[in-house]
Amino acid sequence: MTDDAPRLIALDWGTSSLRSYLLGDGGAVLDTRRLPLGIMQVEGGDFAGAFAKAAGDWRARWPGLPAIAAGMIGSAQGWVEAPYAPVPAGLDELARGLVPVPGAGLHIVPGVVQRGDAPNVMRGEETQIAGALPEGGGGLLVLPGTHSKWVEVAEGRIRRFDTYMTGELFAVLRRHSILGRFVREEDPPPPDDVAREAFARGVAALRAEGASLSPLLFSARALVLTGGLPPEASLDYLSGLLIGDELRGGLAGHAGSIALIGDAALCARYETALAIFGVAGAGMPGDTAAAGLWRIAERAGLTRGPAAGAETLP
Amino acid sequence: MTDDAPRLIALDWGTSSLRSYLLGDGGAVLDTRRLPLGIMQVEGGDFAGAFAKAAGDWRARWPGLPAIAAGMIGSAQGWVEAPYAPVPAGLDELARGLVPVPGAGLHIVPGVVQRGDAPNVMRGEETQIAGALPEGGGGLLVLPGTHSKWVEVAEGRIRRFDTYMTGELFAVLRRHSILGRFVREEDPPPPDDVAREAFARGVAALRAEGASLSPLLFSARALVLTGGLPPEASLDYLSGLLIGDELRGGLAGHAGSIALIGDAALCARYETALAIFGVAGAGMPGDTAAAGLWRIAERAGLTRGPAAGAETLP
Repeated sequence: MTDDAPRLIALDWGTSSLRSYLLGDGGAVLDTRRLPLGIMQVEGGDFAGAFAKAAGDWRARWPGLPAIAAGMIGSAQGWVEAPYAPVPAGLDELARGLVPVPGAGLHIVPGVVQRGDAPNVMRGEETQIAGALPEGGGGLLVLPGTHSKWVEVAEGRIRRFDTYMTGELFAVLRRHSILGRFVREEDPPPPDDVAREAFARGVAALRAEGASLSPLLFSARALVLTGGLPPEASLDYLSGLLIGDELRGGLAGHAGSIALIGDAALCARYETALAIFGVAGAGMPGDTAAAGLWRIAERAGLTRGPAAGAETLP
Repeated sequence: MTDDAPRLIALDWGTSSLRSYLLGDGGAVLDTRRLPLGIMQVEGGDFAGAFAKAAGDWRARWPGLPAIAAGMIGSAQGWVEAPYAPVPAGLDELARGLVPVPGAGLHIVPGVVQRGDAPNVMRGEETQIAGALPEGGGGLLVLPGTHSKWVEVAEGRIRRFDTYMTGELFAVLRRHSILGRFVREEDPPPPDDVAREAFARGVAALRAEGASLSPLLFSARALVLTGGLPPEASLDYLSGLLIGDELRGGLAGHAGSIALIGDAALCARYETALAIFGVAGAGMPGDTAAAGLWRIAERAGLTRGPAAGAETLP
């Protein structure tokens, strides 16, 4: 039970899921829910209907409560396109780039684009970054996932970033390539110690002098065929190779602090791999999307008014 | 019309197709056919039935004609498993490793295994290599394909090899990843000059100092989203990245002659990419499986007798 008055509806709206938050003063999380209504799951493009399912009761109870969303909902395939803000981009640029959804009482956070010789885009991660950093902060932020981002932030602004398709590569190689043949979906996972050892071995193989990913990928098969790796551990070895390759590329030329942002179990896996690369002490602030949505909304003045409605949460 | 007497039935029997050859003296190709009877297409494991379709009429006409097969037919999923011969392996080792199929009048060529710190296997490529090299020859042989092989041969023996999953990576990324989204299967290919330029750009991007595959993969998407690459050319760019990565890995630390073995169109694509890496003059002997099957059978004494039957081809 809390007596905080709600100030903001915040939506982390990606490709495969929709997470909604009811936020109070200072971004305190009053309520949260997760719906299988990512933009690819919304039938007939009925985003207004999905929004109503995610937050309609909150809106009914506190009419006029402002709302903000980040993620693929702002892409060309989403509800209303929120054009990318160019780097360097921080709270000011993201707040200025908010795009209203007509008639919905909802603003969408822009993605971020890097032009020039290393073109790149992000959408959703800019909001997690906004939630992870103290105002004016900096460092190397790593957001593991389907498309992992490695982001250099200085003075509170995203300066440069790379994308590693590590999660997607693992998924397609597991499901659709010869490397997934030794393990069926319904098989139980290998014992923890076997999985850990195979993962660490994959990371270490990629870290070795002169190693490169492409020929090592096939070793996930060849090692099993030659008796050097238990078949049930082949996917953990593959995961180690892919994450190792990401770390080798991402760490090159970097010094200073590192933070891992996102799902706790995945971040722990990256922490293990970082240790094999001799990097310890990464910060792990967890999932910072709600905090980022609050900060961007606050910077844009969306949260300025008195708490919507007079009622408080029971 | 020829009056050569048949001496050998030779089968190049892979995962997805079965190519059969009727060979005369010196390995001269008297007749050939291709059937969609790769080991994954043979229903119920009826390899004897598939063999009859591929060469039954030849056997009926020239009873006692010896037969030899190479490729996945000798794997654990094939007809009879032909255990891998360890490197270094040349004609002598392959001939000694032939495994008979009981009652079929057929011998299967072993694959080759590399143990130790870089375990690897091949099955089928050893036979193409046997057909490509003069006795006692050497050099770097490249066999582009689903699982490209880079093979160091010295004095007629396979010494060391790497596998690059280039073809399989391209196929799974095209079909199952976000990188294939800009091009549908039914779309017409881009104009030749657009495709060539995008391919060359991908190769060059991978060749650049400090480049690595994983972050560049996503650029096949980011370049299109930022207007730097025509969407219809995104797969050619991706192909350039993947082949470029293979070349960078394969060429590292190598000097001396190179030969490209296999499908002519694919070898030509690799020749273009090699030129971007400053490597010219690669030999391109084409498909050498039949020649290799002949040489291995000859070394094993399978072709020693008089031509089977007295009849000659019409």
